[in-house]
Amino acid sequence: MWAELLPVGRSAASGGYRRHAWNGADAECRAWFEQQARDRGLHYELDRNGNQWAWLGDPQGTGAIVTGSHLDSVPDGGAFDGPLGVVSSFAALDELRGRGARFAKPLAIVNFGDEEGARFGVACIGSRLAAGVLAPEQAVELRDADGVRLPDAMERAGYDPTAIGADRDRLARIGAFVELHVEQGRYLAEDQPVGVASAIWPHGRWRFDFHGEANHAGTTWLDDRRDPMLTYANTVLAARKKARLAGALATFGKIAVEPNGTNAIASLVRGWLDSRAADEATLTELVEQIHQAAAERGERDGVKVELTRESYTPVVDFDVPLRDRIAATLHGAPVLPTGAGHDAGILASAVPTAMLFVRNPSGVSHSPAEHAELPDCLAGVSALADVLEDLACQ
Amino acid sequence: MWAELLPVGRSAASGGYRRHAWNGADAECRAWFEQQARDRGLHYELDRNGNQWAWLGDPQGTGAIVTGSHLDSVPDGGAFDGPLGVVSSFAALDELRGRGARFAKPLAIVNFGDEEGARFGVACIGSRLAAGVLAPEQAVELRDADGVRLPDAMERAGYDPTAIGADRDRLARIGAFVELHVEQGRYLAEDQPVGVASAIWPHGRWRFDFHGEANHAGTTWLDDRRDPMLTYANTVLAARKKARLAGALATFGKIAVEPNGTNAIASLVRGWLDSRAADEATLTELVEQIHQAAAERGERDGVKVELTRESYTPVVDFDVPLRDRIAATLHGAPVLPTGAGHDAGILASAVPTAMLFVRNPSGVSHSPAEHAELPDCLAGVSALADVLEDLACQ
Repeated sequence: MWAELLPVGRSAASGGYRRHAWNGADAECRAWFEQQARDRGLHYELDRNGNQWAWLGDPQGTGAIVTGSHLDSVPDGGAFDGPLGVVSSFAALDELRGRGARFAKPLAIVNFGDEEGARFGVACIGSRLAAGVLAPEQAVELRDADGVRLPDAMERAGYDPTAIGADRDRLARIGAFVELHVEQGRYLAEDQPVGVASAIWPHGRWRFDFHGEANHAGTTWLDDRRDPMLTYANTVLAARKKARLAGALATFGKIAVEPNGTNAIASLVRGWLDSRAADEATLTELVEQIHQAAAERGERDGVKVELTRESYTPVVDFDVPLRDRIAATLHGAPVLPTGAGHDAGILASAVPTAMLFVRNPSGVSHSPAEHAELPDCLAGVSALADVLEDLACQ
Repeated sequence: MWAELLPVGRSAASGGYRRHAWNGADAECRAWFEQQARDRGLHYELDRNGNQWAWLGDPQGTGAIVTGSHLDSVPDGGAFDGPLGVVSSFAALDELRGRGARFAKPLAIVNFGDEEGARFGVACIGSRLAAGVLAPEQAVELRDADGVRLPDAMERAGYDPTAIGADRDRLARIGAFVELHVEQGRYLAEDQPVGVASAIWPHGRWRFDFHGEANHAGTTWLDDRRDPMLTYANTVLAARKKARLAGALATFGKIAVEPNGTNAIASLVRGWLDSRAADEATLTELVEQIHQAAAERGERDGVKVELTRESYTPVVDFDVPLRDRIAATLHGAPVLPTGAGHDAGILASAVPTAMLFVRNPSGVSHSPAEHAELPDCLAGVSALADVLEDLACQ
């Protein structure tokens, strides 16, 4: 099962995956999903937002237990982020059938569309639309880097975009959603193959605009410069230091410079800060500290600093009774937070939701080097089977 | 004369000039030059490399005294860099005729093509081709950002690109070349409207490649990161500090980041260093210090640093007897170096060459805010007239 999926959308140059919403590799992954459902005699269903469902039992029944994840990737992503959850779902179902489990509730495996947001810039579009936290009027205006609108991309891939939007009846029939995912940090120790999520850290994206003055790099005295690159550089280092002191995360990974010429002092440097922390107060305080450090250095450099919050997601606390029940089923598996957003984080507002994490020995993700050990992955399948058995069988 | 030229190629949005080689604004500037020549009864001539000449006296005579500069601009450049030298040349000729000067040698005013290199990435293409330091085989391979080749751009602008190349006979007929230019630093004090150039500082362009590891900005512990943005930021600040200590210049104004995503730790940061110093030993030592600082910080960050020298121009010492003669004519005008490249720097290898600088009160150049005061500009015209009278008249 895993072997068929592995080559799809993998770049020969980078070794990374380029499975972006509604592109050719995404279509192959979707065909794979449908085939897996049919091979197992499951009822295959496509919802109005392009998410794929494979049902054991009545899709119209209530209290359904749902598991799954996503099959798309970030640009040059790894093999595990997303697909491990979908593959493990089918494998857990196989294991349960092998055990002779008797299902008391409908069970479904889901593949949410466009979780990574690599193409249209918004993450978790499939689950956001279903949960009603992304309005269809906003979604249809999204464009990719080539200017292609989301509904046109769906249509070209053979999907009907006219019915996208909140799917409350569907979500109301779900009793619990459990997403298995490769861990993206290194919280799990070597003897802990599987953990249970406590929460998704609050996180956001802030744009710093550093306004200086364009000038000739070869003739302008250092004292006459208003060079925003200096202020930017100092802010990058300050963010790292203050995040370390706060036990939080702060990253500058994206920059835009004007005029971006070798012999020109920049007039404008834009730097994007991604920051996350265990709680909202810590995050707010951290960003404020970084802003202050930027403003102070800007004062020295003659550079004006403007801060814009571009996005913000509050803390997501997963359903506590469900989490405790799963941890008990897994004989006291470790409970850990994550800094990454997930479809489970979106669904948590509407459905009792939990996540299982499979150990990531290096902590590397969103990279071709992303990896999980086979014994840990098999332990993940068994753990998911145990959880589904507890929730769906009597 | 100045008023006709001012609006050409000026962006309404930025207030800066976009007169790039062979574009529409460049063509208007060239038409203006030809008209100025004809209005004064000068012999207009286009050389094989697209440089424009306006002759008083025999263009085939020897020992000609040549003055002029360029009319093209950097992107969003100022009004003075280049045009001040051409306008002042015509104005100085007018002043000499007003004085009733009798010319003993041929005199020419020149507009060199594509001095800024804004379109094809190589500066001083017109003078480099003429002096034989840029081979036509290399020049025809140059492309602009839209992929248009240099000869095609010339042809579209109505110029014949087939004869480009070294123009040694023409240069051999020149007795001296004097270029007047707006100062681009603030070396000249308020009571010093005009200075004489001693040398062009050696300068070069170095590319730093910082190789880290792509990872998820929301889940990767700080200690597990190999973030090249940190190494880059530290190198930017180190370059500034070490340049200050060396009395030299170092600028990072251009950067490229991969994958350049907000929630991704960068895998690669490329930063371009522009550095210049009064002598080559200081420059070499400075770049070595910056490289060492980058490598040391890279060691801490787990980031590999690669350094590539992309271009290098040795020091240009202008002709000393000519410089001393001009300084004496101008009653002991200050003698100063410059960090910027000029057509005069290219011609200096083939022709006795000198430069006059007109005071720049703010030191700003390559920017819409570039400025020189009218009294200083008029003093520049008179100084140039004095110099030409000394060199060309008896």
